[in-house]
Amino acid sequence: MFRYKCVISYDGSGFSGYQVQPNGRTVQGELEAALKKIHKGEEIKVTGSGRTDAGVHAIGQVIHFDSPLNIPLGRWPIVMNSTLPDDISIKNMKIADSGFHARYSVAQKEYHYKVHTSLFRDPFKRHYSYHFPYSLDYSAMEKACNYLIGTHDFTSFCSAKTEIIDKVRTLQEIHFSKENDELEFTFVGNGFLYNMVRILMGTILEVGMKKKSPQDIPIILEKKNRAYAGKTAPAEGLYLWKVYYK
Amino acid sequence: MFRYKCVISYDGSGFSGYQVQPNGRTVQGELEAALKKIHKGEEIKVTGSGRTDAGVHAIGQVIHFDSPLNIPLGRWPIVMNSTLPDDISIKNMKIADSGFHARYSVAQKEYHYKVHTSLFRDPFKRHYSYHFPYSLDYSAMEKACNYLIGTHDFTSFCSAKTEIIDKVRTLQEIHFSKENDELEFTFVGNGFLYNMVRILMGTILEVGMKKKSPQDIPIILEKKNRAYAGKTAPAEGLYLWKVYYK
Repeated sequence: MFRYKCVISYDGSGFSGYQVQPNGRTVQGELEAALKKIHKGEEIKVTGSGRTDAGVHAIGQVIHFDSPLNIPLGRWPIVMNSTLPDDISIKNMKIADSGFHARYSVAQKEYHYKVHTSLFRDPFKRHYSYHFPYSLDYSAMEKACNYLIGTHDFTSFCSAKTEIIDKVRTLQEIHFSKENDELEFTFVGNGFLYNMVRILMGTILEVGMKKKSPQDIPIILEKKNRAYAGKTAPAEGLYLWKVYYK
Repeated sequence: MFRYKCVISYDGSGFSGYQVQPNGRTVQGELEAALKKIHKGEEIKVTGSGRTDAGVHAIGQVIHFDSPLNIPLGRWPIVMNSTLPDDISIKNMKIADSGFHARYSVAQKEYHYKVHTSLFRDPFKRHYSYHFPYSLDYSAMEKACNYLIGTHDFTSFCSAKTEIIDKVRTLQEIHFSKENDELEFTFVGNGFLYNMVRILMGTILEVGMKKKSPQDIPIILEKKNRAYAGKTAPAEGLYLWKVYYK
């Protein structure tokens, strides 16, 4: 029995999210269906680094699974990619230690969020970027990002629906780059709460529009109440970019 | 009555092509439906620079239509974009001379064709680029392109289904650029026959794979027979990039 670690990419627009659920097409569901075919009907359980919501994309999601099959490592991604639907792709595959766990061994995650600010929408970006055709104060957004870096209780930036109790997380990096009318935000942290990047993003954009000031950020953190933060930015701009392991 | 000239962009993956047809969603159909709404039920006929097939994209398709409405020019694209579905976008709009005709006044058209050569498919490119994971002889493809430039009878590079008799066209430019595993071909000509860019592209790629040699190109042109050219490359890599007018 070997434990395989795979880096996968998927276009989230055709999925009801990563995790298997009773109704709707999911990434995990498609991966497990492909592995079942490859294993001639045997059920193979796939474990991901974490969920992504409906419409959220992945450039470097990581999964693991165990298999008794004796397929050469170089053949594995070819077999997987020819069995999977074309909105999921295996980017690379390694044999991992039996102690490796795609979720429990995570050290850090990196998310990106794409915004395009052109006045008119771009048909090619409608599923891949958040169309936000408003003028933004970039220096205020930069200040807001800097207030968010560090170890904080992120209760205000977490969906109220969550069951997790400890909401203290550390954000190592938040920054953005701008090229013409495209903004790309990077978030690196040791853990992210439910909807956290999207709520951070919605709040940063409200600072950009001067609905909030950068100095509101420490106050919002202090309140530990979701109602004080900005709106949840839509799923289509969000990408699980990379997962770092211990 | 004003004649409006619009530059539009669309993601072809959700359309059965540009031109209205009895079954299937079309770009022209969506444009005319939006204009009908804006004109409170009055039918407005839209004329495009030419058709694009199912799955073919447009960055700069041009259309014209006549309208009696007194909407300020700056408001028009906003009204149109808020009425159109999100896979079509009006990029700009001008009042044209009453003699302007989106099809008959065309001087040149520019098409691009995107190919990506990475071993594994990229889920984000599946509708927007032709996945061709084979090694290519770039210098042979460049020679093939150079043989195609100029005025030729392109019968061999035209779908046999066409009814047009005169198949002499002039290609002013064919070249390509390469960035990592992405190739982008540019075709500029005074007119293109049915499927011409896709058949040219399929043939150039066969030269790249050494199934044909660059010196076969003048022979294929000479034969005036579709059977001698390469396969028709798929729609998803093709973009109507720009239309030039007299």
